[in-house]
Amino acid sequence: MAVLTIADLDDLARGAAFLGTGGGGDPYIGRLMAQEAMREAGGTVELMDLSAVPDDALVIAAGNMGAPTVLIEKIPGGDEPVQALRRLEAHLGRPADAVIPFEAGGVNSTLPLLIGAKTGLPVVDADGMGRAFPELQMETFGVYGVPAPPLAIVNEFGDSVVIEAHSDRMAEWIARGVTIRMGGQTSIAEYAMDGATAKRVSIPGTMTLAQRIGRCLRESRQRHIDPFAALIDLLPHTHYGLGRVLFTGKIADVLRETRHGFAIGRARIAGLDGWIGEMEITFQNENLVARQGGQVRAIVPDLICILDSETAEPITTEWLRYGQRVTVLGVGVPEIMRTPEALAVFGPQGFGLDEPFVPIEALLDIVPC
Amino acid sequence: MAVLTIADLDDLARGAAFLGTGGGGDPYIGRLMAQEAMREAGGTVELMDLSAVPDDALVIAAGNMGAPTVLIEKIPGGDEPVQALRRLEAHLGRPADAVIPFEAGGVNSTLPLLIGAKTGLPVVDADGMGRAFPELQMETFGVYGVPAPPLAIVNEFGDSVVIEAHSDRMAEWIARGVTIRMGGQTSIAEYAMDGATAKRVSIPGTMTLAQRIGRCLRESRQRHIDPFAALIDLLPHTHYGLGRVLFTGKIADVLRETRHGFAIGRARIAGLDGWIGEMEITFQNENLVARQGGQVRAIVPDLICILDSETAEPITTEWLRYGQRVTVLGVGVPEIMRTPEALAVFGPQGFGLDEPFVPIEALLDIVPC
Repeated sequence: MAVLTIADLDDLARGAAFLGTGGGGDPYIGRLMAQEAMREAGGTVELMDLSAVPDDALVIAAGNMGAPTVLIEKIPGGDEPVQALRRLEAHLGRPADAVIPFEAGGVNSTLPLLIGAKTGLPVVDADGMGRAFPELQMETFGVYGVPAPPLAIVNEFGDSVVIEAHSDRMAEWIARGVTIRMGGQTSIAEYAMDGATAKRVSIPGTMTLAQRIGRCLRESRQRHIDPFAALIDLLPHTHYGLGRVLFTGKIADVLRETRHGFAIGRARIAGLDGWIGEMEITFQNENLVARQGGQVRAIVPDLICILDSETAEPITTEWLRYGQRVTVLGVGVPEIMRTPEALAVFGPQGFGLDEPFVPIEALLDIVPC
Repeated sequence: MAVLTIADLDDLARGAAFLGTGGGGDPYIGRLMAQEAMREAGGTVELMDLSAVPDDALVIAAGNMGAPTVLIEKIPGGDEPVQALRRLEAHLGRPADAVIPFEAGGVNSTLPLLIGAKTGLPVVDADGMGRAFPELQMETFGVYGVPAPPLAIVNEFGDSVVIEAHSDRMAEWIARGVTIRMGGQTSIAEYAMDGATAKRVSIPGTMTLAQRIGRCLRESRQRHIDPFAALIDLLPHTHYGLGRVLFTGKIADVLRETRHGFAIGRARIAGLDGWIGEMEITFQNENLVARQGGQVRAIVPDLICILDSETAEPITTEWLRYGQRVTVLGVGVPEIMRTPEALAVFGPQGFGLDEPFVPIEALLDIVPC
């Protein structure tokens, strides 16, 4: 069992912002919330390796739901994620033995640590997305057979809802409606499963992966080496593989609306430093497609990450601004996220996109050596 | 304990449509559903006098929620009201001893009979509105201290939600959002209370009142006497008091939208048979204000009922059509519905109307003798 300290949070949050691919919510807020809870709890949280979770343990996924644009204006009180867990435990009639992040992106990497700090529960070093996705059915948990419901939702006033639904999509549909009525941000607990199942359906090591990515970006900056090159070198040593700079430029235009409970829109980036033409990135909380001159250069579920060209800090959807100098990285996701079952849920079709999924390696015409 | 038979349903549904004041949903659908359930159950349902409910009995209010305009296109499967009750019972960890209608209008007078027929539970001859209102906090139950939550909602697919909320208004807000996402019509169970409380906070005898009103309209028609006069004669013998014809005319225009989960709009009626000018009636599911030449002639919570001039059949909001010959009746509600606490919840302010509540007697300048 590893132990996470407050000192680890900065790297973890930065790496989680990268894996958030634009979404997942401002990691700064999540980091501050986890930091405060950990300070009160003595400074540490247990991080449990996925393989170490007992087969009969009750594992519950928890975090926040809603538009990241709302999160920065409606900051949580701090106890909601624990209350969501408690509400689901009460419904199930059994306490959780461990908490698992449902996404390894944005605030949802650090909020499980807050729950760990406040409850003493271990946090499993794994998740159900391997990145961030905007909808709750977009989980390897669900793809490989665990139902999202029963699902608990709470707000900052202690109002709560428990949803039972015949499908994860219906659970998402209802939960999104409740979240909108609760002001656009809520805490949820879902995908209750035993440890044996968790080992089968989760993407392992994504919390430590976020830490490694965050550390890589920080250290390369400190040592004045190119952080983008450093990260691209690191990725093949993780369960992610190929990473490439897709584009470098200046943000020329951002269209962003908070609609249907999501941050929906697109950013146009005008080429700089030898990059010609324009890249357009469309998003639904997370970045979905990167197009250059009408050609798809990367598409969901492969990662499309926008970073500050100067500092290599990942920029989340809600902080995209005209004039920012940015570098766009594309990263190929592991095969477990590219199976037909997985693509049916969180591939282009899952978002109503017309384009088929083409792996980034093929789009960039990279021949494996 | 009285016994209701299938033969009673016709009068009860007609009277409930009258008490629905335009809302509560098409009583024809509710009657058919209750009739079918009662036929399968041997033809009868127990109707329990409010005073006969044991003090320690668990009483649960149940019925349908949503826009009446949706109900006529999305007809319930028939088991949803029972499932809503079961879901709330499971949450409470205790079975109900009796069902109480939450409104004495439209389908929500007959759906509790369906539950009674399917479960064998007695149905209390009382309700929490004395009529129909569009929102779930608009209940004497709530006005006099019983919280609406925990509240169960189910749809025709077996999806369900249990809401806990810090206020009845918040419960309504969330439940309406869930109902919209579930297609605009759901079954709900709410206001769980003990029998002693039910006696304190309910409006007694409204199921038999609906029956008497329905019978009065039917018999007067059969005996070729003026049904409007007959009804106005009957009302002072009920806990309702004064009834008056407010207007007679032809529907000149109907504006009706299904918006925010409600049927919202207005009807304009052009005078006939000596009635001069126009009456305009605005509604949110139920009729809220009747104005003639800009002057308020009746206002919520007093009843504003639109009936077919020929047949004296009550016409619900969703069936209002250009050209119908109608007679508008105004009825004064009992004092328990006109207290400051009651008016704060379901008086004009509760609907965001600017006009204050003025009793129909004062508006019509009727001097009590």
